[in-house]
Amino acid sequence: MKYIINPTFDQTGAIFLCSKEIKENCEIAIFGVPFDGTTSFRPGARFGPAAIREVSVGIESFCPQLKVDLEEINFSDFGSLEIPFGNPLPVINEVEKASKKFFSKGIKPLMIGGEHSITSGAVKAAVESYPDLILLQLDAHADLRNNWLGSKYNHACTMQRCLDYVQSSKVYQIGIRSGTRQEFQEMESKKRLINHLKGQPACALDNILKENLGTPIYLTVDLDWFDPSVLPGTGTPEPGGYYWEDFAAIIDVLKKHNIIAADVVELAPQLDTSSISSIFAAKVVRSLIMLLSQN
Amino acid sequence: MKYIINPTFDQTGAIFLCSKEIKENCEIAIFGVPFDGTTSFRPGARFGPAAIREVSVGIESFCPQLKVDLEEINFSDFGSLEIPFGNPLPVINEVEKASKKFFSKGIKPLMIGGEHSITSGAVKAAVESYPDLILLQLDAHADLRNNWLGSKYNHACTMQRCLDYVQSSKVYQIGIRSGTRQEFQEMESKKRLINHLKGQPACALDNILKENLGTPIYLTVDLDWFDPSVLPGTGTPEPGGYYWEDFAAIIDVLKKHNIIAADVVELAPQLDTSSISSIFAAKVVRSLIMLLSQN
Amino acid sequence: MKYIINPTFDQTGAIFLCSKEIKENCEIAIFGVPFDGTTSFRPGARFGPAAIREVSVGIESFCPQLKVDLEEINFSDFGSLEIPFGNPLPVINEVEKASKKFFSKGIKPLMIGGEHSITSGAVKAAVESYPDLILLQLDAHADLRNNWLGSKYNHACTMQRCLDYVQSSKVYQIGIRSGTRQEFQEMESKKRLINHLKGQPACALDNILKENLGTPIYLTVDLDWFDPSVLPGTGTPEPGGYYWEDFAAIIDVLKKHNIIAADVVELAPQLDTSSISSIFAAKVVRSLIMLLSQN
Amino acid sequence: MKYIINPTFDQTGAIFLCSKEIKENCEIAIFGVPFDGTTSFRPGARFGPAAIREVSVGIESFCPQLKVDLEEINFSDFGSLEIPFGNPLPVINEVEKASKKFFSKGIKPLMIGGEHSITSGAVKAAVESYPDLILLQLDAHADLRNNWLGSKYNHACTMQRCLDYVQSSKVYQIGIRSGTRQEFQEMESKKRLINHLKGQPACALDNILKENLGTPIYLTVDLDWFDPSVLPGTGTPEPGGYYWEDFAAIIDVLKKHNIIAADVVELAPQLDTSSISSIFAAKVVRSLIMLLSQN
Amino acid sequence: MKYIINPTFDQTGAIFLCSKEIKENCEIAIFGVPFDGTTSFRPGARFGPAAIREVSVGIESFCPQLKVDLEEINFSDFGSLEIPFGNPLPVINEVEKASKKFFSKGIKPLMIGGEHSITSGAVKAAVESYPDLILLQLDAHADLRNNWLGSKYNHACTMQRCLDYVQSSKVYQIGIRSGTRQEFQEMESKKRLINHLKGQPACALDNILKENLGTPIYLTVDLDWFDPSVLPGTGTPEPGGYYWEDFAAIIDVLKKHNIIAADVVELAPQLDTSSISSIFAAKVVRSLIMLLSQN
Amino acid sequence: MKYIINPTFDQTGAIFLCSKEIKENCEIAIFGVPFDGTTSFRPGARFGPAAIREVSVGIESFCPQLKVDLEEINFSDFGSLEIPFGNPLPVINEVEKASKKFFSKGIKPLMIGGEHSITSGAVKAAVESYPDLILLQLDAHADLRNNWLGSKYNHACTMQRCLDYVQSSKVYQIGIRSGTRQEFQEMESKKRLINHLKGQPACALDNILKENLGTPIYLTVDLDWFDPSVLPGTGTPEPGGYYWEDFAAIIDVLKKHNIIAADVVELAPQLDTSSISSIFAAKVVRSLIMLLSQN
Repeated sequence: MKYIINPTFDQTGAIFLCSKEIKENCEIAIFGVPFDGTTSFRPGARFGPAAIREVSVGIESFCPQLKVDLEEINFSDFGSLEIPFGNPLPVINEVEKASKKFFSKGIKPLMIGGEHSITSGAVKAAVESYPDLILLQLDAHADLRNNWLGSKYNHACTMQRCLDYVQSSKVYQIGIRSGTRQEFQEMESKKRLINHLKGQPACALDNILKENLGTPIYLTVDLDWFDPSVLPGTGTPEPGGYYWEDFAAIIDVLKKHNIIAADVVELAPQLDTSSISSIFAAKVVRSLIMLLSQN
Repeated sequence: MKYIINPTFDQTGAIFLCSKEIKENCEIAIFGVPFDGTTSFRPGARFGPAAIREVSVGIESFCPQLKVDLEEINFSDFGSLEIPFGNPLPVINEVEKASKKFFSKGIKPLMIGGEHSITSGAVKAAVESYPDLILLQLDAHADLRNNWLGSKYNHACTMQRCLDYVQSSKVYQIGIRSGTRQEFQEMESKKRLINHLKGQPACALDNILKENLGTPIYLTVDLDWFDPSVLPGTGTPEPGGYYWEDFAAIIDVLKKHNIIAADVVELAPQLDTSSISSIFAAKVVRSLIMLLSQN
Repeated sequence: MKYIINPTFDQTGAIFLCSKEIKENCEIAIFGVPFDGTTSFRPGARFGPAAIREVSVGIESFCPQLKVDLEEINFSDFGSLEIPFGNPLPVINEVEKASKKFFSKGIKPLMIGGEHSITSGAVKAAVESYPDLILLQLDAHADLRNNWLGSKYNHACTMQRCLDYVQSSKVYQIGIRSGTRQEFQEMESKKRLINHLKGQPACALDNILKENLGTPIYLTVDLDWFDPSVLPGTGTPEPGGYYWEDFAAIIDVLKKHNIIAADVVELAPQLDTSSISSIFAAKVVRSLIMLLSQN
Repeated sequence: MKYIINPTFDQTGAIFLCSKEIKENCEIAIFGVPFDGTTSFRPGARFGPAAIREVSVGIESFCPQLKVDLEEINFSDFGSLEIPFGNPLPVINEVEKASKKFFSKGIKPLMIGGEHSITSGAVKAAVESYPDLILLQLDAHADLRNNWLGSKYNHACTMQRCLDYVQSSKVYQIGIRSGTRQEFQEMESKKRLINHLKGQPACALDNILKENLGTPIYLTVDLDWFDPSVLPGTGTPEPGGYYWEDFAAIIDVLKKHNIIAADVVELAPQLDTSSISSIFAAKVVRSLIMLLSQN
Repeated sequence: MKYIINPTFDQTGAIFLCSKEIKENCEIAIFGVPFDGTTSFRPGARFGPAAIREVSVGIESFCPQLKVDLEEINFSDFGSLEIPFGNPLPVINEVEKASKKFFSKGIKPLMIGGEHSITSGAVKAAVESYPDLILLQLDAHADLRNNWLGSKYNHACTMQRCLDYVQSSKVYQIGIRSGTRQEFQEMESKKRLINHLKGQPACALDNILKENLGTPIYLTVDLDWFDPSVLPGTGTPEPGGYYWEDFAAIIDVLKKHNIIAADVVELAPQLDTSSISSIFAAKVVRSLIMLLSQN
Repeated sequence: MKYIINPTFDQTGAIFLCSKEIKENCEIAIFGVPFDGTTSFRPGARFGPAAIREVSVGIESFCPQLKVDLEEINFSDFGSLEIPFGNPLPVINEVEKASKKFFSKGIKPLMIGGEHSITSGAVKAAVESYPDLILLQLDAHADLRNNWLGSKYNHACTMQRCLDYVQSSKVYQIGIRSGTRQEFQEMESKKRLINHLKGQPACALDNILKENLGTPIYLTVDLDWFDPSVLPGTGTPEPGGYYWEDFAAIIDVLKKHNIIAADVVELAPQLDTSSISSIFAAKVVRSLIMLLSQN
């Protein structure tokens, strides 16, 4: 797809299972953002996009839950965004630029991180195209610090940055189980926290979303939302997390709604030598491609 | 047990916990088949038999669920079948020969893989001795391809090969969660799929089997049926799997029935440096020895 | 805290998150016991204390379940007890001495193992200060052998050693899922076994403890109580274990009671290269610090 | 390069550092053969091609020994040959077909394995184009068995298969340090063994080759020639091997000669979690690209 | 040592073997800089300081080469510098500040990285105190890029940054084996490259230094100078490196000279699960402490 | 071999490559001692015997250096000695008993550890049969402490214990590179240290031994003598060690002499996930079997 010149994508790596050749009429665009410059605990999320693509050949293209086959979907893997190192802001800006290009062509972006800080760039672009955007966050951590270790763009601040663009009442933070006292107070007072420490988040989410049928939704999946037992390969694992079944239940809710973009972040594949984390993440991406293709 | 000359077993490796000296009146025979020649994704199942035996000293010989101690059971570990490399058919033929020898002496075989392709050899031998055989499959994958990567005997075809010998209505595929659209259609139209994507398979299985009291049963356990979190050391891990409790519930059902042979396949121990996969598999084998000794 | 001269602590290692400077009025004392001399299967528990401290920076100091922040608690990490090698009895004696010093100053000890054999030293000291002590054990294994591999002080005998000091009716063994036939018979006949193989242990525990409001409680947490999927880094992993949610439920029960000391043992961090075991253990320690500070 | 239709290459994976777009006038063609079906000890060589490409971004494109930069060389990475599983002969046939296509267009092939059995296909094609071909083998093992584990095409037979096409006096086996008594006798009696157990093989090689200036040479590099300390990620590591310096000395000799094809085989990257093996192999490939471009 | 207030050090981690309590008359100060924000290939150097300290208990305090025991040396481990994340310049500034404090009190600093970019801060401080400073670099890579991935302070630029403060003729780059064509041209034209690709660098170094007896020397040791077989745990391993013997020979030369500061950088311990890299690095640090204490 | 009743051997594990059935006329006896109870740094040597046997199938039975095939040698693997846990003295006593039994029957014992402390038991038995015994030690560490961490039988004291039985002038400590100042003074003053920090130890050894032709020799090989790069899987790796070539040179010397027993200790296989350490150790054992069979 030569008409996307800036930003540029590195296309020398592996591509996701069943990706189609890049064409004008592409409906969904996968792209990687191999950035982990602000990770405070265990780095390695930069290797996430490559790992997800490489192991994708190990899963089937057919999903028995959604009864769809990837072969039938018109999506392309654009490769990984070329980004500068170290400083997060220029990276977030490139993410915003790329996302805008995709939105302007009617292509739904599916971004693969990299660390969570990149989400705010994509969300900023999404809000510009869809001002009434709902933002759904699956995450172990609140990510609501305004500033962390000297930067507003640290991955621990990413939801606070998104709140610079999306109104608070449009943001739902699902199943957060780690944060400061202040972060929990903010989420609870603003009624943004869904199913903290108990119950099934899919039911609560269903109740909320059915009053917003058709509203465009951005879904950000920080993989540490899942329990460390099923996804050990992430920088800040937090015990007591969710399982595949919980995600499948959320997919069952979301398939009735209008998802216009998504991201999957914080896979640090080298922390898990068994590779079950990467395979899990690839199956999450498979579900999201199908979700994005539903309407 | 010198009267088993062909096929031959390599008895230079470790043996399973509490195995008795090999004698004529042995009731249960464990044997390994260290083969992984058709594995398409991640090889290493060849090391499964050795790993299960080595870690077996790390579990107790007493099972609090079944209230049986391995010490009280007359079983022997025959070592690992000597097999040619690369091509699956000669291996499957050796498995068939060995299984026949055991059945002809009234010994119940418990085979430890190796990859799943070896099951069809044992099932063929079992059907010859027990023409009304029921075949139960615990597996993440349907394994119903007729041909895969140029071979009818690939581990992705093993159930289709078993269906060459066992009638379709006698086969139950329990909790399959990965396959092609065609595989799912076949399993559903033939009513072979038990509890796909929901519910407790043990209940459904109980309902089916109680109408077949006394019918001989072959149980094949592809370890990737279990969730990758409890068993990461397998070639094609599939998120969203089953746990020890689900297996224990199935054992509670099966202990009322006539299990005449079983296998445990697809442990790839080197993919899991923590060894919890091998220990899990050894506990599965312990339960199966007890199950085979029940009647 | 210079007045503790014998036993001595090595304070050259890392310390636990938010630990305060060692002072006279300290309320809770963390100390490590890097001993694994009697481990029969897979050693490495000696590295447990160091690993838990190192990864503690990767979790938040605030607990959303208990709504407490570690910063607000007056606890100190005393470092690791200096111990002789090989023979368990002198180590257990040092543990007893250290625990007595802490009890005599009104400090609640929180011991980090190391293998389980060290618990009997701390329990002996606790009984001396609190003769009506209740002992709660979270563990996969009964640990009731009277003698194992030639020693009464092996980690497989630790509960039998504790029973030398605590009366049997005051001991509760929660969720034990591995042992000899004799061990299970003892636990059942003495009514010490809570929720074996089924149900939620927290409910049963609640019923028992509410008749003992205010009675001093010692809680020993052998980390292999948890499922090997969430805690693979332990010497004798046993499939079919408990999860974070089960522990959180127990914490909810215990926060109404009078915990006067606790230990967390059997983390063998090098068996889990992903480090999720150490992070899990650090979160367990965080909960226990908060529990000990409640009254 | 659409005119290569049969055999087909999978181009969805990563490509080697500085690879140029595939064009008619390409001088050197890299291609992968992800096959390890006959590996008798530790499988995983199938992941070799992908691993070498992925880590190639971690080395510089400039070589200070040869004073060449990869950027200046007209080579293309064609991706990985699509191959059937399990049976080696069809794979070897595909390798032969692909190699012939390259030779017929004046392109020098550089094959990345995969296990060593694939070499005989490439050598057969090379001999057809270059009947006076010299074959140089860097390897720990003689690979001269005529039949192994039931197959003539096992990786332990690969040099015997090459000797079906190349005359014995044209074959040099450099630094072999493992084999049967018979294999060593054959190599020594035929004067094919260079510098066994002592001395610097580069000097001996120089003496031999300088009498054959201009003769076309095929170089096969079994990576287990190197010491397991510098390349632990290989299926049959053999202590007492060679180092980078020894390889550099051989490159210094070979750069004066007419290398027309080469291969690099037996990297099993998952056996080395540090990845130094893959990085080492990538540097070997970098040197070989430069060597192939010299004349 | 309370008089060092800014910059601050985190003293909650482990300390190096035989470190003395921090006092006014300290002669040598170890401090860590856990930074890897500009690492382009494989991150993890941030864990270097902690790993070196933890494994230091596994080596002896006596060095048979130098015949010195650490116990006899008046050095203190100050802990790790508290640094902001992501952006290298503020980190380098903190390093400069800390180094100046040490030089101003007559304490010789020994910095443990962290990535190589931090060296320029320490060198800037050293030049201020010692204007005729000689800078010795042991490294696999030239690190002479002026700008890399958008930053002048990337770890690939660190020697270029040092050349902003030290005159080119005072810099010796020892055994560099990786770089761009331009970097090698610069090193060679400026006569800064010692023993590239051949010979023993210790001899050449001896010849150079004996004409500068007494001149203050800063020694920076990028651990990737060593061969990846002895030190696999580093971000950009480069085959063909140096061994302990080569380092010992350099120590034998340097012990006759006036080393006033040193650093050891680029250990990424998690890339090497065997920990031999950390142990190697700890032994390097032991030698450097002894070297710094010589005069 | 039923006449060896006390001590008993566990024969349920794997056996070494080409081991013959146990018979009266056996010439060489391999036995394992899976003990690591006094290891102060990193345990795991208990798994050494099993690992060496398991990987032995991965090496050839023919040795091109010695031109012998294991098939031609009458040796048997007796399995692993059954030992009590924790306390070293009873273990050393069992080793002594077993060794005496072997010597009394004219069988040469080859013991596989386990940690080094076991050597003193075997040496005590050897001296009783061969009063003029020479003891050769290949080791990184002097092991001459008289007492360590509260025990005279710690693995750091093993040579001091041997010196209780063998006269000092008959002991040669080859290539020791780590110890206390006192240990080095003792070795040097007693002229027991061969080739410390320089030169080729094989030459020096040759000079010493040729004046003792025919004298019975016990050879103890602590695997940490080798460089950690070739043998990372050991408890206390020490940089700057020896390579296969150095060992081969020593074998070339020793094959002219009268080796009557040997041991290979301190392999801790789980510390090296690549298994090159175990394979290296198996090749060392292969050489020693051949050496023991020479006269």
